[in-house]
Amino acid sequence: MLFHMRFLYSALFLLILSASTVHGAEGECLDCHRANNEGIVKVWAESSHGNEGIDCQLCHGSDHEKLDKAEVFVDTKVCGQCHEDALDQHEKSRHVMGLHSGWGCTRNQPDRDQTDCSFCHIKGSSIPLSTVQCARFLEQTPEVGELGCNRCHQVERSCASCHTNHSTELAIVQEPDVCATCHMGPDHPQWEAWRTSKHGTLYSQGLGPSCQDCHFVQGHDVSAGIAYPSSGIVYPDEVVQKKRETMLEACQKCHSRTFAEDELVKADAIRAQSKAIVKEASEIIQDLYDRKLLDPMPEERPGHPLRGNQLVLDQQILYEDTSHIERLFFKMKKYDLAKTIVGVYHQNPDYMHWYGNAELKMGLTDIRAEAKRLKMFSKMTTKEQGAKPAEIEEELMVLKKRLERSELDKDAYERQKSELLRRYTEQ
Amino acid sequence: MLFHMRFLYSALFLLILSASTVHGAEGECLDCHRANNEGIVKVWAESSHGNEGIDCQLCHGSDHEKLDKAEVFVDTKVCGQCHEDALDQHEKSRHVMGLHSGWGCTRNQPDRDQTDCSFCHIKGSSIPLSTVQCARFLEQTPEVGELGCNRCHQVERSCASCHTNHSTELAIVQEPDVCATCHMGPDHPQWEAWRTSKHGTLYSQGLGPSCQDCHFVQGHDVSAGIAYPSSGIVYPDEVVQKKRETMLEACQKCHSRTFAEDELVKADAIRAQSKAIVKEASEIIQDLYDRKLLDPMPEERPGHPLRGNQLVLDQQILYEDTSHIERLFFKMKKYDLAKTIVGVYHQNPDYMHWYGNAELKMGLTDIRAEAKRLKMFSKMTTKEQGAKPAEIEEELMVLKKRLERSELDKDAYERQKSELLRRYTEQ
Amino acid sequence: MLFHMRFLYSALFLLILSASTVHGAEGECLDCHRANNEGIVKVWAESSHGNEGIDCQLCHGSDHEKLDKAEVFVDTKVCGQCHEDALDQHEKSRHVMGLHSGWGCTRNQPDRDQTDCSFCHIKGSSIPLSTVQCARFLEQTPEVGELGCNRCHQVERSCASCHTNHSTELAIVQEPDVCATCHMGPDHPQWEAWRTSKHGTLYSQGLGPSCQDCHFVQGHDVSAGIAYPSSGIVYPDEVVQKKRETMLEACQKCHSRTFAEDELVKADAIRAQSKAIVKEASEIIQDLYDRKLLDPMPEERPGHPLRGNQLVLDQQILYEDTSHIERLFFKMKKYDLAKTIVGVYHQNPDYMHWYGNAELKMGLTDIRAEAKRLKMFSKMTTKEQGAKPAEIEEELMVLKKRLERSELDKDAYERQKSELLRRYTEQ
Repeated sequence: MLFHMRFLYSALFLLILSASTVHGAEGECLDCHRANNEGIVKVWAESSHGNEGIDCQLCHGSDHEKLDKAEVFVDTKVCGQCHEDALDQHEKSRHVMGLHSGWGCTRNQPDRDQTDCSFCHIKGSSIPLSTVQCARFLEQTPEVGELGCNRCHQVERSCASCHTNHSTELAIVQEPDVCATCHMGPDHPQWEAWRTSKHGTLYSQGLGPSCQDCHFVQGHDVSAGIAYPSSGIVYPDEVVQKKRETMLEACQKCHSRTFAEDELVKADAIRAQSKAIVKEASEIIQDLYDRKLLDPMPEERPGHPLRGNQLVLDQQILYEDTSHIERLFFKMKKYDLAKTIVGVYHQNPDYMHWYGNAELKMGLTDIRAEAKRLKMFSKMTTKEQGAKPAEIEEELMVLKKRLERSELDKDAYERQKSELLRRYTEQ
Repeated sequence: MLFHMRFLYSALFLLILSASTVHGAEGECLDCHRANNEGIVKVWAESSHGNEGIDCQLCHGSDHEKLDKAEVFVDTKVCGQCHEDALDQHEKSRHVMGLHSGWGCTRNQPDRDQTDCSFCHIKGSSIPLSTVQCARFLEQTPEVGELGCNRCHQVERSCASCHTNHSTELAIVQEPDVCATCHMGPDHPQWEAWRTSKHGTLYSQGLGPSCQDCHFVQGHDVSAGIAYPSSGIVYPDEVVQKKRETMLEACQKCHSRTFAEDELVKADAIRAQSKAIVKEASEIIQDLYDRKLLDPMPEERPGHPLRGNQLVLDQQILYEDTSHIERLFFKMKKYDLAKTIVGVYHQNPDYMHWYGNAELKMGLTDIRAEAKRLKMFSKMTTKEQGAKPAEIEEELMVLKKRLERSELDKDAYERQKSELLRRYTEQ
Repeated sequence: MLFHMRFLYSALFLLILSASTVHGAEGECLDCHRANNEGIVKVWAESSHGNEGIDCQLCHGSDHEKLDKAEVFVDTKVCGQCHEDALDQHEKSRHVMGLHSGWGCTRNQPDRDQTDCSFCHIKGSSIPLSTVQCARFLEQTPEVGELGCNRCHQVERSCASCHTNHSTELAIVQEPDVCATCHMGPDHPQWEAWRTSKHGTLYSQGLGPSCQDCHFVQGHDVSAGIAYPSSGIVYPDEVVQKKRETMLEACQKCHSRTFAEDELVKADAIRAQSKAIVKEASEIIQDLYDRKLLDPMPEERPGHPLRGNQLVLDQQILYEDTSHIERLFFKMKKYDLAKTIVGVYHQNPDYMHWYGNAELKMGLTDIRAEAKRLKMFSKMTTKEQGAKPAEIEEELMVLKKRLERSELDKDAYERQKSELLRRYTEQ
């Protein structure tokens, strides 16, 4: 049925196509634009669209007033009228979550039931809810939001993100460079890590694999072989296994299965070890928060756009208006952990170790030092004010909160509580 | 008249050329240098200079003793004898300020009248005054000054900075790589931002614009379309408009005017927003200085080479021998702000946002935290010494200084003063 | 004799080769691997090995069970059976110290007699002792050690580190890209510094020198012209001179000897100036250690794997579990100093100055600030506890330790001691 509808649309589209070509609409646009924007017209004219008479209006429409105000956007639906399979593949990929991993991080909140579709979607629709939002996006000015966040995250609705405007040259999208603009930078240096890995350096000499060789094995489904997505969403075991298998098939073109499996198992271990370092840092900050030692405390600063005056250390963490120690943690979680993971799964020893794991460990040193400083300040200030903190009460409260956050189980809680009381009595 | 003089020089030059060729001077040099420096001779022999008999002595002269001591420099005047138009264009560009934006930052001092030519130049001459100097250059050892600063800033007087020695291959100077060595790094990553932007990644596939396509539209005047120069000099409105128009013409080769204008307007907004973050940080440091809380204070450390024991936060800011909070500010102003601006005007979302704007905001967090620490230390130390600061007097002094620096207007000053006195009386 | 032995081995090897070809061993492997690992087989088939019948078993052996468990490693000895000269050159190079500059930094310890071979080697053998170890390697998890450290440092025993597996294409190892994966990153950005230097940018246009042009002048002896190795080992003067001469010969292909010498002399000066900055920082930390002000002190944290609870600031410095000020020092010593030196000897003004020397100076500012903070905390805490430090005794102890470490000579020690006592008496 869906197929028939699509067929009908395509037929209609071709009808319009032939009609508009007959009416010479192409000429109307080209007369001016050849003079004013020679670059566009040249690229289009040399493209297969240009060669086959797919003229300006077929993609851009004919409302020149709206076009002039840049109010017309050629989105995936326009391209999908002819390129059905590509659109189908794209809609199965994580690229289609582009805007909603930018705008949409609420789907990653810890209290979310990952199997509950209605957390993100209107029932029966693939359209995300308007409540699916990213705190970091909400904190930006409109300009930074558009030229910073959405220039990449709009991949969801724009084929031109990768294919570029007007060119239909497939060679362009078969080059890793086309991925670079978005898949780079301190928060996800996939391009840099690949470029200087043995894979990337051999690629520059015609021998190694490109982004596309490993990640485009199922057409536009760019997330096919990625078992642990960077969003932090945890896939069910069978999905992990399926995705791992897809990746191993790509590795086996050039490596033995034993070698490839072994590399991925080691990479998984390094991922887990690195996450443990981040967890240790996060617990130090939680502890300071419980003791009201963050400076400023969340209630003393502008509210988080989604959580108000709570402490936020999960995927919705902000880098604006936090305390110094939280911004040290932001770097660890968002940059150094990402570099370690991106580095190790792209077989880049320098990104994994020096840019990633070593920075994580140094970050932990800095966070421990700042935590000590904050505690010392508090002690000094408290003493000056003549107040004596009811230390045992504070320690019990901290312990209680750790139980509530499931950092301690019931047994560990009881054990540590007894120990505290015992020490207090002996004093 | 100038034209005639030049013509005369050129004629004389050609006369010398033919004479030296006749006398076989070429052979004299080549006999040894072919054996000792095969690379140079090969590149020269394959160049159009080599093909047309422009031999060694015509550019290098014939004083072998001086040549041997590396005392002969082939500067722009030597090249300009034949390449008059190129030299004319070069002398209109900001490249000709090379040495004097390195050595010459005094021209950017806040007390300077930008329309007063005599601040930088001997009257009637394009030669800069010897008082035009850069504090950061003055702080370097001679070796760092030469291999660090001047290896790039000598572009003013050296065509070889871009064209390289001996090759006359135009393809070389038509490649962005020729710009990379100088237009890179934490303080102005133009090359990196372009390279990983959509423009740069398409260029690597034969489709996108190079540095030259947008910035060489008026020959060697490389600053033609740059409305807001990185020096911080503010052009008059009509110059800004003219330069913007030049850039828009370059954009329009491939983009609609509406789109290009809109992008630049957003970029201008991000530039202003980012400068406001830097200003907030600068005011925090000024305030600490007013309260004598910088550690060390300017009078306790080696003097600034141009301002002595003043606090310097403008373009002449140093990174040596400052307090910790000033060096945090240096990174914001010189690196993060530059990355934001270079990133946004080169359409690179990652440089603008993650490497630039996000770092600025995190830098502000660090500066706020350090300011709080310094104030807390001061309070503790003061209390220990038994002294009680005359707090109201200090606050009034700080307010007065903000008025003097025009951070507050008269009205705001009076309002805040009354408020202070009222609060004090109520205590 | 050695030659005869080698000849014998080669003859035997060729015998095995012809025998195995006759027995169709090639076919046995290829039947499966052509289907399962088409990439490997294709590269091999197109290589000169493939063309000349050097089949799988000759390098990998025929124990399929071990092969399947990835227990067979094709090391330099396997390749050296045929490629004798290359192996000879490799064994003279610093590449052959790969594992033992990773695992083997004990050889750089300050108490080592550099002329005593037995510090590193079993007498009469080139095999390093098992006690030759690197503290940073020992601190890693097995996975980080393997995918991080050894993926590069195994160059000692693996020709494939550069030549890659299966390809015999010489063009690959003549490209700087082949060096990039290991010679990159914050601790030794040789590839990045070269890539954006004038040499590297001209290379991309077919004109400038590659890594190989300057460093492969004596075959595989990649360290031929490097007078000051990054390990910190100090060569005897005559070795320095010989290595410098080798480098100057490479420079002279394109530059005059005077120019090249002058550049290297300036580079040496910048290296010495930069090491002096690091030394100043190191003395600040030593002083804090003497006063027991590091936080935490070495005895309060997990022991150093080679030195236990000592302070370690030399080549064996760790970045794990240190105090904040030591980790600031780690960045200076391991990253910023390296960037300065790698930058200046690769003629890259931005790496030398902005990424290197400027960061060193800013690092020193941060270290001075943290030292002041630690002293202030100590003073405050001491006062609170009612104790009065015997200041004169502490100062005399610190002075004594500086004498013991040869930071002061006898005269300076006595002078400063008298001065201290005089000031104390006058109080």
